[in-house]
Amino acid sequence: MKVVVDAFGGDNAPLEVVEGAVLAIKQNKDLTVVLTGDEIKIKEILGDRIERIEIVDAKDVVTNEDSPTIAIRQKKDSSLVRAFDLLKTDETIIGLVSAGSTGAILAGAIMKIGRIKGISRPALAPILPTKTDRDVIIVDSGANVDCKSENLLHFAIMGSAYYSIIAGEKAPRVALLNNGAEEHKGNELTKETYPLMKTLPINFVGNSEAREVMSGDVDVIVCDGFAGNVLLKGVEGTASAILSTLKKEVKASFWAKIGYLFMKGAFKKLKTKLDINKHGGAPFLGCKKLIVKNHGSCGRDNICASIMQVIKLHENKLNEKIEAMIQDMTGKVGTEND
Amino acid sequence: MKVVVDAFGGDNAPLEVVEGAVLAIKQNKDLTVVLTGDEIKIKEILGDRIERIEIVDAKDVVTNEDSPTIAIRQKKDSSLVRAFDLLKTDETIIGLVSAGSTGAILAGAIMKIGRIKGISRPALAPILPTKTDRDVIIVDSGANVDCKSENLLHFAIMGSAYYSIIAGEKAPRVALLNNGAEEHKGNELTKETYPLMKTLPINFVGNSEAREVMSGDVDVIVCDGFAGNVLLKGVEGTASAILSTLKKEVKASFWAKIGYLFMKGAFKKLKTKLDINKHGGAPFLGCKKLIVKNHGSCGRDNICASIMQVIKLHENKLNEKIEAMIQDMTGKVGTEND
Repeated sequence: MKVVVDAFGGDNAPLEVVEGAVLAIKQNKDLTVVLTGDEIKIKEILGDRIERIEIVDAKDVVTNEDSPTIAIRQKKDSSLVRAFDLLKTDETIIGLVSAGSTGAILAGAIMKIGRIKGISRPALAPILPTKTDRDVIIVDSGANVDCKSENLLHFAIMGSAYYSIIAGEKAPRVALLNNGAEEHKGNELTKETYPLMKTLPINFVGNSEAREVMSGDVDVIVCDGFAGNVLLKGVEGTASAILSTLKKEVKASFWAKIGYLFMKGAFKKLKTKLDINKHGGAPFLGCKKLIVKNHGSCGRDNICASIMQVIKLHENKLNEKIEAMIQDMTGKVGTEND
Repeated sequence: MKVVVDAFGGDNAPLEVVEGAVLAIKQNKDLTVVLTGDEIKIKEILGDRIERIEIVDAKDVVTNEDSPTIAIRQKKDSSLVRAFDLLKTDETIIGLVSAGSTGAILAGAIMKIGRIKGISRPALAPILPTKTDRDVIIVDSGANVDCKSENLLHFAIMGSAYYSIIAGEKAPRVALLNNGAEEHKGNELTKETYPLMKTLPINFVGNSEAREVMSGDVDVIVCDGFAGNVLLKGVEGTASAILSTLKKEVKASFWAKIGYLFMKGAFKKLKTKLDINKHGGAPFLGCKKLIVKNHGSCGRDNICASIMQVIKLHENKLNEKIEAMIQDMTGKVGTEND
């Protein structure tokens, strides 16, 4: 079983990516990781830890400044494009992990790998923590900023299938992100989508306001990529602002500093809880092969977690489940596909 | 100078609303408050504190369960509709404050009061704290869930005028909420709006991601009401989830409990900072008269702050400024008005 990893994607590449691959190799005896990128640099990091690691040389790197589609077309010798080419052609490779440019990963996925039959648009589905022990996923968090109802229905199906695997839940609670809880609330898109959501073979629990995102009351939040991006980044920004404000208050007071020493453990637990990268990256759901996008600033643990996530999704047949559920849908929402 | 207050709007009405009016009367010697609602109950609360307070009897109440437009049309003897009728007909009344149903307040504003000449759609503009000493406002936070570019341009102008009054800033930094910082990023709406924003007589600073909302780097965030609602409620939900998680961690550990005692002051300051109601409510910008919507759960201090806000906006001629700025705009964005 092979997973291809873009060794030069992300702020901490190649060191953290290569080390993440080594961690993954240790955790799974059946795994081989294919690293793409500058062979000399990768070998320098690896040293003699070469068992079940293959290297495919690529001299170029796709950056955040590159235009995604142009980069995928023209940077043929980049670590990301090489990784996609391998994913496409090598049937023993089950998935791809990259912490590189989100836009380029999405473009590569569409242009090189393609969609699962019946899926109108693949979607990014990051995990967020909640105040309970359960996590929540947002589909789509930014891959599709303009959506139709059909897209949202597919996001719901893919999100439900994905969540059921990662959380071991038979019927994850799927909600439509909206500006009110009542059925009649919403913009044109959500009002049109709501009744259609009820017809899907999933556990649709109705509308969810953004206020409820971390309540733990829902498992899958379905939305267009623009709203999902606002939600995801709004949560990140708020968490960061609150923690930095609290830090400032603590620094400003002698007694608070003393108190902080006693509370260090509690803060550490909170920080771990809020770490959105701890489970690995966000899968790009709906592509013919498994693709996981890591946060650009991620470290070796996140890369390792993402490789493990690819294996878990493969072993639990995520894509086969999605395809079966899409076939199951009535014909009325399948007109735009293929 | 008179302000009309819907004494029966909100979860804590009429007690907190009436007490809020009394607080405002004490703070401003030129102010008269007109309270609408059940006269007997209002008088019970007021006792002998009747100086510069007028009561207009209204036996009915508009609830969150009412359909907004139907309630405004049919509940003629409700405290909210009476308040709007007074605002419309009594020229000495400069504005209205209510903590009632948002939908009904918006419907009343449109149906009874109407828009400032040239404004395509009025918008709600709540204030959020940032990690700096400056606040940020979101326009629109939910009044208009489907928008065109023209609406967003008007939100930008109204938000800029409003922020300049409340913060004493000559050129507030106005940003377009988007899924990326670069000019080419966005959905159809924001991509179309970006170049038009540059033509406005405001300090447009470009796109802002939701992650930056509490950074203090921008003063006015312009967006459609659906995205604004997601942003506002996402921030609220995240803050509440983080604080409740931290509380749980503190309760779970003896040492953290001790630490909390030392840090109580720091937490209190954080809580005050995060209180989005402390400045009063959210104005409904772009109506012919000043209308401020309070949070349903607000207390007397918030009601008082909202009344003070109405006075400040009136004295600083908010609506005249908005009208002048709209006239100033080139003809290309004024075609759909009136």
